[in-house]
Amino acid sequence: MGMTIAEKILAARSGQERVVPGQLIECATDWVLCHEITTPAALRMLEERGMNRVFDPSRIVAVPDHSVPAMNIKAAKMYQKLKSWVQEQGIEHFFDVGRGGIAHVVLENTGLVKPGQTLVSGDSHTCNAGALGAFATGVGSTDLAGAIYAGKVWFKVPETMLIRVTGRTQPGVTPKDIVLEVIRRIGADGANYMVMEWVGDYIDALDMEGRFTLTNMAIEAGGKTGIVAVDDVTRAFLAERGVAPGEYTEYASDADAAYKVVIEVDASQVQPTVAYPHIPSNGRVAGSDRVAVTHAYVGSCTNGRISDLRDVARILRGRKIADGVQMIVVPATQAIWKQAAQEGLLEVFVDAGASVSYPSCGACLGMHSGVLGPDDVCISSSNRNFVGRMGDPSAQIYLASPATVAASAVAGFISDPRAYNDAGQAAD
Amino acid sequence: MGMTIAEKILAARSGQERVVPGQLIECATDWVLCHEITTPAALRMLEERGMNRVFDPSRIVAVPDHSVPAMNIKAAKMYQKLKSWVQEQGIEHFFDVGRGGIAHVVLENTGLVKPGQTLVSGDSHTCNAGALGAFATGVGSTDLAGAIYAGKVWFKVPETMLIRVTGRTQPGVTPKDIVLEVIRRIGADGANYMVMEWVGDYIDALDMEGRFTLTNMAIEAGGKTGIVAVDDVTRAFLAERGVAPGEYTEYASDADAAYKVVIEVDASQVQPTVAYPHIPSNGRVAGSDRVAVTHAYVGSCTNGRISDLRDVARILRGRKIADGVQMIVVPATQAIWKQAAQEGLLEVFVDAGASVSYPSCGACLGMHSGVLGPDDVCISSSNRNFVGRMGDPSAQIYLASPATVAASAVAGFISDPRAYNDAGQAAD
Repeated sequence: MGMTIAEKILAARSGQERVVPGQLIECATDWVLCHEITTPAALRMLEERGMNRVFDPSRIVAVPDHSVPAMNIKAAKMYQKLKSWVQEQGIEHFFDVGRGGIAHVVLENTGLVKPGQTLVSGDSHTCNAGALGAFATGVGSTDLAGAIYAGKVWFKVPETMLIRVTGRTQPGVTPKDIVLEVIRRIGADGANYMVMEWVGDYIDALDMEGRFTLTNMAIEAGGKTGIVAVDDVTRAFLAERGVAPGEYTEYASDADAAYKVVIEVDASQVQPTVAYPHIPSNGRVAGSDRVAVTHAYVGSCTNGRISDLRDVARILRGRKIADGVQMIVVPATQAIWKQAAQEGLLEVFVDAGASVSYPSCGACLGMHSGVLGPDDVCISSSNRNFVGRMGDPSAQIYLASPATVAASAVAGFISDPRAYNDAGQAAD
Repeated sequence: MGMTIAEKILAARSGQERVVPGQLIECATDWVLCHEITTPAALRMLEERGMNRVFDPSRIVAVPDHSVPAMNIKAAKMYQKLKSWVQEQGIEHFFDVGRGGIAHVVLENTGLVKPGQTLVSGDSHTCNAGALGAFATGVGSTDLAGAIYAGKVWFKVPETMLIRVTGRTQPGVTPKDIVLEVIRRIGADGANYMVMEWVGDYIDALDMEGRFTLTNMAIEAGGKTGIVAVDDVTRAFLAERGVAPGEYTEYASDADAAYKVVIEVDASQVQPTVAYPHIPSNGRVAGSDRVAVTHAYVGSCTNGRISDLRDVARILRGRKIADGVQMIVVPATQAIWKQAAQEGLLEVFVDAGASVSYPSCGACLGMHSGVLGPDDVCISSSNRNFVGRMGDPSAQIYLASPATVAASAVAGFISDPRAYNDAGQAAD
């Protein structure tokens, strides 16, 4: 019996020839990603035990992103804790406020995490980096403490779900719609503790930004992580970031690898999809009901990349956001922010009446810069629409692609972005 | 005995031929400026008394600015309260999130407030609009409620302090340095309940942006307001905003007007000035001590205008902010934000390692986006450095011009911006 990519990585990093799903392994962590919200709790655990050290200061990437610039004194203290630890331990890769952005998106662009490696972080969207052919997953603060201290973590080897996406999307349909459609079909627990491995000619043709959106959302189906095999798209992306093919190991799933589930998706049939409250699997076609919105949010580790911002600008250019709608656009990193500025996209957003924020996780988790009040209705490019996720428990969150968010902001109600296909193709 | 500008405005708007300092008058308010922090309290007072109406929906300007986009659910509710009141009362001038910015700076650019008029708001920096030759002052929520309901407010006619500024500043010295120098000389209570009237050839040559910085800071010397007589600079500024000279009344102080105090300032002798903690009158020459900073803040109703951003960009262009310093740049309005984007200034800030925020009062009052933690040290272009103003009570706030903030951010400690005079003149 062959192995999947994920199994091969876990075997290699646990020093074994092979692993099988269900097996408990002690796995080396090549990278530990630390932000200011969950890391301080892990550090306190270590300090209380006199174990305040790091396994390798060159293997930790620290990026404050959730509550910076601080919105209250407590947040300022969390940031101070992360920063003082970075200085005290000599952590090499620190992306301070103004030099980084949303940790997952900062990391994917550093060239640090490479195919075949393992990454953990105290953040559920760590699965994002799986698009690089790495095994990347979120862990709790206790496991995070162990990884920081020892560079190791215990895993139960997950089973793998194969998702084969074939064909071409219609204009106006994006990777976000693909993943929302998959979660609609399998349910928000449909991939519980599984690796979601993406294959098919749609994936082959997809750029890295779109792939990150797919692997980023694995946790929204309960997945342990998402993963895409290395191909020329991956290699070119890494080469642009100074990483040569010889510097990493490419794993591919064996033809006879065992998959727990196989899902087939015809991309041409996928519609612009909106996940209705209060679960990401509650997908319907955008615009099938008239849902008035008070807020429109573009950003997050799922959809705050330059291609997302271009999709939004294509729709907002020369148009105004509807009266009564508050729109926030959050480029995911400072580099993306600058790129968007240079392309003139940020001016388009401001002209249309949107607020452009510094990079931040902020509103996605109701922590900062765009928190929803009672009965607010938000169309959001983020990843999770649970009760209270973005603020007040009575607020309603609808998840969609950036294009759908933009179309909805202009109309004042949730709308199908295909109405703007003549304004240029909003698809990837 | 003649009258000052302020006395003439108050006489006219209270329907009298003349008023004298100390006299209690009932004064018509031409404009009431409302933001989301103090207005809800005023509205509750009116609602509890069954007096929920506005004297004139065309005379109220509503601008959420302190805590938007909301950083928590409470802030979201304050915003909702302001917005629903605007809709219910048919308030004509509403600058929603993404369409406005910091209320005082939004207002000064609307052409609504005109010379000779009166303006009140539940915000102490309302004096900002005095640069337009209007009588503009902050009031408490009770007086604000009265003004909203009746379009009137009680005033005790203030005495006037005359500040005559002559000569030319050295390159690198800005209007912020002039006003910090004046407050250093007279004390933070030096103009208590007085109008601070600015005259002299320095003022004659000063653009409106610089004048707003001067009148904005009146409250930091205890002043009731600041004021500048109308001249060609004012007229041109208003004309650019669609206001013709026939649409307003120009008042000038009489030659024999009575001034409580006269202050003479030789602009050529003013140094780049930094107000040390914890009072704006604690001025010293920038760079006279080595004070390391953790935060650098450019923004606020005092210094978030395009000329301020240009001063900062001139120093930051091609340079990096020192490691360990968190810098935030906050254009005061969406229009200024867009102008700065078009001039390429925002890219300069991001290149240097600064975060660029949407317009917000935010960090200036420790409410949002840049709150200081314990022992943080901030060099700030804002207006007030009281204990706890920007966050934790142990944080230290140093007030300075945008140029001094930029020079300090690059060095990592408080620095004299004149070192960058060869990078272009940072003065107004």
